[in-house]
Formats: sequence, structure tokens, C-alpha cells
Amino acid sequence: MAELYAVRMDVALPPDLDPAARADLLAREKAYSQEWQRSGHWKSIRRCVGEYANLSIFEVEGNAQLHEILWGLPLLAYTTITVTPLAQHPSDIAAG
Amino acid sequence: MAELYAVRMDVALPPDLDPAARADLLAREKAYSQEWQRSGHWKSIRRCVGEYANLSIFEVEGNAQLHEILWGLPLLAYTTITVTPLAQHPSDIAAG
Amino acid sequence: MAELYAVRMDVALPPDLDPAARADLLAREKAYSQEWQRSGHWKSIRRCVGEYANLSIFEVEGNAQLHEILWGLPLLAYTTITVTPLAQHPSDIAAG
Amino acid sequence: MAELYAVRMDVALPPDLDPAARADLLAREKAYSQEWQRSGHWKSIRRCVGEYANLSIFEVEGNAQLHEILWGLPLLAYTTITVTPLAQHPSDIAAG
Amino acid sequence: MAELYAVRMDVALPPDLDPAARADLLAREKAYSQEWQRSGHWKSIRRCVGEYANLSIFEVEGNAQLHEILWGLPLLAYTTITVTPLAQHPSDIAAG
Amino acid sequence: MAELYAVRMDVALPPDLDPAARADLLAREKAYSQEWQRSGHWKSIRRCVGEYANLSIFEVEGNAQLHEILWGLPLLAYTTITVTPLAQHPSDIAAG
Amino acid sequence: MAELYAVRMDVALPPDLDPAARADLLAREKAYSQEWQRSGHWKSIRRCVGEYANLSIFEVEGNAQLHEILWGLPLLAYTTITVTPLAQHPSDIAAG
Amino acid sequence: MAELYAVRMDVALPPDLDPAARADLLAREKAYSQEWQRSGHWKSIRRCVGEYANLSIFEVEGNAQLHEILWGLPLLAYTTITVTPLAQHPSDIAAG
Amino acid sequence: MAELYAVRMDVALPPDLDPAARADLLAREKAYSQEWQRSGHWKSIRRCVGEYANLSIFEVEGNAQLHEILWGLPLLAYTTITVTPLAQHPSDIAAG
Amino acid sequence: MAELYAVRMDVALPPDLDPAARADLLAREKAYSQEWQRSGHWKSIRRCVGEYANLSIFEVEGNAQLHEILWGLPLLAYTTITVTPLAQHPSDIAAG
Repeated sequence: MAELYAVRMDVALPPDLDPAARADLLAREKAYSQEWQRSGHWKSIRRCVGEYANLSIFEVEGNAQLHEILWGLPLLAYTTITVTPLAQHPSDIAAG
Repeated sequence: MAELYAVRMDVALPPDLDPAARADLLAREKAYSQEWQRSGHWKSIRRCVGEYANLSIFEVEGNAQLHEILWGLPLLAYTTITVTPLAQHPSDIAAG
Repeated sequence: MAELYAVRMDVALPPDLDPAARADLLAREKAYSQEWQRSGHWKSIRRCVGEYANLSIFEVEGNAQLHEILWGLPLLAYTTITVTPLAQHPSDIAAG
Repeated sequence: MAELYAVRMDVALPPDLDPAARADLLAREKAYSQEWQRSGHWKSIRRCVGEYANLSIFEVEGNAQLHEILWGLPLLAYTTITVTPLAQHPSDIAAG
Repeated sequence: MAELYAVRMDVALPPDLDPAARADLLAREKAYSQEWQRSGHWKSIRRCVGEYANLSIFEVEGNAQLHEILWGLPLLAYTTITVTPLAQHPSDIAAG
Repeated sequence: MAELYAVRMDVALPPDLDPAARADLLAREKAYSQEWQRSGHWKSIRRCVGEYANLSIFEVEGNAQLHEILWGLPLLAYTTITVTPLAQHPSDIAAG
Repeated sequence: MAELYAVRMDVALPPDLDPAARADLLAREKAYSQEWQRSGHWKSIRRCVGEYANLSIFEVEGNAQLHEILWGLPLLAYTTITVTPLAQHPSDIAAG
Repeated sequence: MAELYAVRMDVALPPDLDPAARADLLAREKAYSQEWQRSGHWKSIRRCVGEYANLSIFEVEGNAQLHEILWGLPLLAYTTITVTPLAQHPSDIAAG
Repeated sequence: MAELYAVRMDVALPPDLDPAARADLLAREKAYSQEWQRSGHWKSIRRCVGEYANLSIFEVEGNAQLHEILWGLPLLAYTTITVTPLAQHPSDIAAG
Repeated sequence: MAELYAVRMDVALPPDLDPAARADLLAREKAYSQEWQRSGHWKSIRRCVGEYANLSIFEVEGNAQLHEILWGLPLLAYTTITVTPLAQHPSDIAAG
């Protein structure tokens, strides 16, 4: 049984972060995100225009797996996370 | 060129709305949403769990078309709308 | 697999609601809540002191079932609902 | 006479905290929490999904004991605490 | 064992309330408050200057009794209540 | 003529403050508070449970004296202060 | 001894208020304000541009008199009031 | 001397407004806006996508004229207005 | 033509600012403020009781001059500024 | 097809930024802004009076180009950005 969640991530990196440390963090964040995207659990990630933020959709087994994925984000210490659990909408044409 | 937007709609129907008027409004809202879903412009609609709210993704020509679609919602007078313009995220595996 | 959620419900009944309609609503809300408590899905309900509000814990199959239960609340039209998905905490002594 | 409270704790550890100091803090926080859980006063602790936060239920003698427990948290200097006093809800099936 | 709480009450009476009903409500609120003041449980009530609000201190057995007193306020349906549990402060000269 | 004010003080000490400097600050804050309590102007100070905050009542000559007292707090640079001017409430049994 | 306060008043008149009742309310509010302005206690009243709001300065005996004046406003039931107690500023050239 | 202001107007029309009254209000609002646009004082008006709101730029003699124009809006009783005074920006290429 | 504005300034000086640098900043801020007060443009400055904040009234040529004055504040980098444009109020007895 | 957006930028530079680094940042920000102004995409930039903030209007191909421009701002790491997508308003005299 797959559960859906919308997750908004707002990132605040300190401007004086060491450039190499910063590049390393961003590379690891990208790799981590893409690994979960390929698994099918991180269904989409989109940039919020003009903000260091993304809106993502996750499809996971449930609360525990979602927490595990988010907890492992390399940028977690710099990220504010907002989780919205989702369910099928009665107007969804896919609802049959 | 297709533009993406996340739109959250929070609905507040007065509890004492006439039941027939209410049923009519909801039926028209559903039909309107499904018509735009079938057109491909209202890409997804999902219920926010426990709330009279949905999180939708739109793919439209631009700001004007998005406004036209939202302005035509039968429930518009009872709906608070929050629009977030979206762009491709550099970590998106679809970014090539 | 059981999922846990904290749900806060803030109720705002209009002061001029017809007393009989009000009594009926409250009786139905209580019966509905107790039915789900007996099922084991509405694990606890506690009054927030001095407020027309409760803090409840739900243990359900997932997002869809939680939404179905909340959507059926007789007082729903007068209630603001805040959902927090929960997971096991590493400091929980029950975590083994 | 036992008093119930819901307590939400939001933790904000500085990203550049010394790893050893951090590990020590977390170990002490866990031990402290588990000691109070075993006493029966910290009735439950649950992770808020995706957030460095927990929602806990305390059953203590009263305001003074709750404050004493929270004031002793090893992570207190990094934690924002929100306290909600609770009482029995009339719909609670345990209310007899 | 006596517990202390600060309670702020913000009242919002509809301007078009029937004057007789309004006068009756206010008279009953005053009598109710004074009855609890005389019992020693509603220790103080002070007007917040320029606002239809008061800041009160309660000394009661615990959460349940505080809720019972507040729940019985004749103006409750028009009142927003904020509860802050209090404990002895280490700088209090009465702390010995 | 004595004026009453409720003052809430929220303290945020940096976690890495030098322990000796911290102990000195707290000792001076306590002595300062107790001196004003003994003068009768700082009528009460109570801990907000679980928070590094207090709710105090001041009885002073007026705005200028209240500002002078608060401005002298040794912890002022770390404190957020909220002032609520108070007046006698018509329901106060002491109102005669 | 004169005390100073800044008071912001935000007025929200219902659009469907009876025009004669509205005109009467506004005339009484103006007369009431001007009476207190002439007494010297309502030192200034200025319109916040584009808003149904004013920012006023009062010079009164203290909290009780300020409350009495504000409580008597004919538009009080439609007005949200924010009070800021003021004191002499050390940079004020009038401070000598 | 011309002064610039950004003004955001958020309109909230009651859903049950009489359709003829509504149409009349909207027609008068449009005529009023266009009259001031033609005068050159209401420099631009743009729709905020998906919201019953606009963002406008005014170029007027000063605060008094801006207030006079906004105060005359036929929809004023249903409109929340936010004013931001503007000045020339040093990066403006028109700054010479 | 003189324009009026209310300006609230909230200052947040870092507690560990070098005492000499701090004293120099405050002396320059005071001199700067008094120079503009003597010019008649900074009409009044009053302390918000218990807060590192002031409420000031400015009478200037317009937006540009107000910005120029505020931009030159020696404490600007530590100050949050809120500007409210003012106009004559119809109830002002000075309105004739 | 050109899309319009209002963008508010609030800048927070650390007061202890190295003066040369600061001057360099500001010079690069100005050059970057003027380059985009000359391209016609950054249609206007205006100072919000008394604030380290501007309100700008952009006319770009769509969400992606707006994000690209904002993402390249030399001051981005110190800037909070708020984007409002705009569409033609039916009252706009330019709407024909």
C-alpha cells in the first residue's frame, strides 16, 4: 500500500560556508535525491521559483519510511521541512 | 512552452448552505475540474488529509491561462487560493 | 501496518445555533468518536484545557483511512483540523 | 492526582556543533528521556515526521514537576517547548 | 496541592446582540466570576487596557478544575481563551 | 497613584555562553529582581512552565518607572519583553 | 503626572450597516473624539493612508483613564485597539 | 513633485451578494479605476494570479491624495488595502 | 507641502558588541536623530516601554526624503523599520 | 509571449561584513540588475521606503527564466524573495 505526501523543503545555507564543503554537500544532496527518485519513492521534485526551496511528492510505505528518507538528507541541518499527507481526491479523473 | 504551478485551494463552505445549492456547487466544481484534467492542464489534484483542501499541479501556457482556469472555479467565492510558480529542479532525474 | 497521527481539532460553533440542533450535533459527534475509539483506530482523545479543542491520536492503515474518519465527523463543518504524521522516536523505550 | 500535558519539542542544533559534543548531548538526552519514561511520567514520545521534533505526553503531579523534568533536558538550550495542559474529554470511552 | 495558571480571555460580542440578552449575559458572567473569586480559585482578574479582554490568575486543584471553571463561563461562546501553566520562579522572594 | 502592568519576559541565552559569565548574569538578574520585589514594585514573578520565560506583575508610578526597571535588567540584551497595561476589571470583587 | 500612549484603532464596519445608523455612529464618534481632543487628553489623531484606521497619541493620568476613554468610543464594538505605552526617549531634544 | 506607492488590494465579496448589486459595484469600481488611470495617477493595475486581488502603482502628489483616491473606491468596504511607499532605487537605470 | 509618516524602529544590538564600538554607535545615533529633530523633520521620538524600540513621527517633503533620513541612521544595520504613511483625519480638531 | 511577475527582495547583510567584500557585492548586484534592466526583462526596480528592500516588476518568457535571473543575483544568499505571478486586470485601460 503506497502513501502519498507533499513535502516542501526550504534550505538556508550560511553565506560564509566553505565553498568546497558547500559543493560537497550539494553534490551529495543531489545524488541522494536522485537515488530515491530512481527507486520511485521520490516521485517528483520541482523548484519554487526564486526561492532556495523545492516542492516534492513522495510515494512511500508510510510515515516511517518518509521520515527515514527525509532524515537522511545531506542538507537536513540547513533545511526546514513541511509535510502534508495526501489522499485521493474525489474529483481526480483517475479515481474511476 | 508549458509552465508549471502548484496551487493549494482551501475551501470554506458555510455550514448552513442550502443542501441542494451545495450539491449543485460540488457537482459543477467536480465537472469543471475533470474537464481541465482531461485537457491535460490540471495535471493532478490530491486531497490534503483531514482538510477541505487540495494540492494541485497545473501545466498551462502561462500566468494568464492559469488565472482564467482558477477564476472559473464554481467554488471560487468560497476558496482561498495559494499559487507557487515552479521550475525544473537541478536534481530532477528528468533534467538529463 | 499501522500508521500513527496526532490530530488537533478546534471547534467553533456559532453561539446562535439552535439548541436542539446543537444537542443533536454533539450527540452524534460523541457517538461517532466513540465508535472509532472502540475500533481501536481513535486511540485517544483529550480536552485542551479551556479551549473548545481536543488533541487526539489515531492509529490507522494510512492517509486514506485517516481522511475517511475525519471527513465523517458530524462537527466537521465547524472544525479546523491539524494533522501531524508520527513515527517511532529513537528515544522511545518501546523501540527495543 | 495525576495531571496530563502534551508537550511538543522542536530542536535546532547548530550544524557546526562539534561531533563529539553532539553525540554526547544526544546520548544524554536519550538516557534522560528513557529514565523519565521508565518512571511512568513521560508516557509517550513520538517523532514528528520529517522534523527534528517530537510530540510527547506527560503524566505528572502538576505544573511544578513538569517544569522540573523539562528544565533538566540536556538539549534544553537548543529546544523550543510548547506545553498544552490536557483534561479528560467527555467523548473519551474511558470516561465511563 | 494548588496549581497556578495565567488565563487571558478575549471577548468578541456581536455588535447587533439584543441589548437585553447582552445585559443578561454580562450580569451572569460577572456573578459567575465573582463566585469563583470568592472561592479563592479565581485569584485575580484585571482589564487589558483598551481591549475587551482580561488577564486572570487561577489557583486550582489542577487541569480538570481549571477546565471546569472556564467551560462554565456564560460568555464562553464569545471568548477566546489562552492558558499558560505557571510554576514558582527561582527569583521569587517568596521561594525562601 | 499606582499603575499595574503585566510583563512577559522570554529569555534566549546563547548555548555557548561562558559558564562563569552565565552564572554571573543569572546571579545579578536574581538579585536585581529581588531588590525590586522587596520594594513592592515587582509584585509577582512566575515561571511559564517548560519555557525560559516568566510572567510578572508590576505596580509602579507609571510608564517611565516601568521602563527604567525593565531597562536595568542584567539579562535585557537576551530578553524579549511584552508589556500589557492593566486596569481594574468591573468584575473584580475588590472593586467594591 | 501625565502618561503617554500610542493607540492604533482599526475599524471594521459591516458593509450592510443601515446608512442612517452608520451616519449616526460616525457623527457620535467624531464628536466624542473632538471632545477628548479639546480636553488635551487625545493629543493627536492621524489617518493611516488607505486604511480605515488611525494612529493616535493620548496623554492621560494613567492606564485607568486611557481605558475609560477608549471604552466609551461609539465605534468600539467595530474597532480593534492596539495600545503601546510610551516614555521619554533619551535622544529626544526635549529631554534636556 | 510626484510620489510613488505600491498598493495591494484584496477583495472579499460575500458569496450571497445580490447579483445586480454586485454587477453595479463592479461596474462602478471599473469606471472609477479607469478614470484615475486616465488621469495618470493610477499608473498600473495588475491581477494577482488566482486571487481576487490586484497590485497597483500610484503616482500622486502625496499621502493625502493617495488616501482620497483609495477612500473613494466603490469596493472599499470589501477591500483590504496594503500601502508601500516607494522611492527611487540606486540601481534603477533611469536614475542617471 | 509636508508629508507625515509614523515610523517604528526596533533595534537589535548583538550582546557581544564591543563596548567602545557600541558607545560610539549610540552617540552617533543620538546626534544624528537630534540634528534631524532640530531641523523640524523628525517631529517626535518616544520610547516604547520595555522595548529597544521607538515610535517616531516625521514631517518631510515626501517618500524620498524620508528614505534618505532613515537610510542614514548609524544603527540602521541593527534596526527593523516599519513605515506608516499618515494623512489628516476628518475628526482632527485642527482640520477646521 | 511575455509573462509578468512582481518580486519583492528583502536584503539582510550582516553588519560585520568586511567593507571591501560588501562594496564588491553591492557593485556586482547593481551591475547585474542594470544588465537585466537594459535587456527589458527587469522592467522596474523601486526602493521600499526605509527598508533594505525593493519591489520589482519582471517581464520574462516564463517561470524558468525568472528563476534563472533571480538565482544569479550576487546578493541572493542574503536575500528573501517573494514572487507574485501577474496577469492583465480587466479594469486596465490598456486591456482595450
